[in-house]
Amino acid sequence: MPIEHTVVFRLVHEAGSDEESAFLRAGRDTLTAIPGVTGFAVMRQVSPGSPFTHQFRMVFADAAAYDAYNRHPAHVGFVEERWVPEVADFQEFDFEPA
Amino acid sequence: MPIEHTVVFRLVHEAGSDEESAFLRAGRDTLTAIPGVTGFAVMRQVSPGSPFTHQFRMVFADAAAYDAYNRHPAHVGFVEERWVPEVADFQEFDFEPA
Repeated sequence: MPIEHTVVFRLVHEAGSDEESAFLRAGRDTLTAIPGVTGFAVMRQVSPGSPFTHQFRMVFADAAAYDAYNRHPAHVGFVEERWVPEVADFQEFDFEPA
Repeated sequence: MPIEHTVVFRLVHEAGSDEESAFLRAGRDTLTAIPGVTGFAVMRQVSPGSPFTHQFRMVFADAAAYDAYNRHPAHVGFVEERWVPEVADFQEFDFEPA
């Protein structure tokens, strides 16, 4: 069954800054190059009821593809080199059709 | 600009119970009948990193359609009669393309 993997987050950078743009671009470039990632999108979170400002979303064909993504060196490297130092807070949600 | 309105939640009901099914069915039937609601879906939240178990999602063509939905008597009634007594916890997120 397809799995939609999502993460909402806010950055340590100022809204509209060059650093924000660079992070979002790096996320898109790095993660879409990983095998199995489909339907990737960067979204702005606009509800005033949440402090998160952005979302990455992607769809995997099945749990095996999702697992391979999690273990892929490009994903692990992105988390270590960009995500940990530049993301102030985040929350993951994964969705399947009910 | 289109707005994706989402809410993740968990119910006071047991997983797999008749009460859970009835709530999800009532949400779908009630909310999809409100003008302006498109792309409605009920999703299961399966990440172990979150206690939420379900999501409702829908897309509005613009902020005016979203506002009309929020004020619609069928929405207000669903919140009062079903959401408040049957939802244990929830979080809204709204998304626009970045």
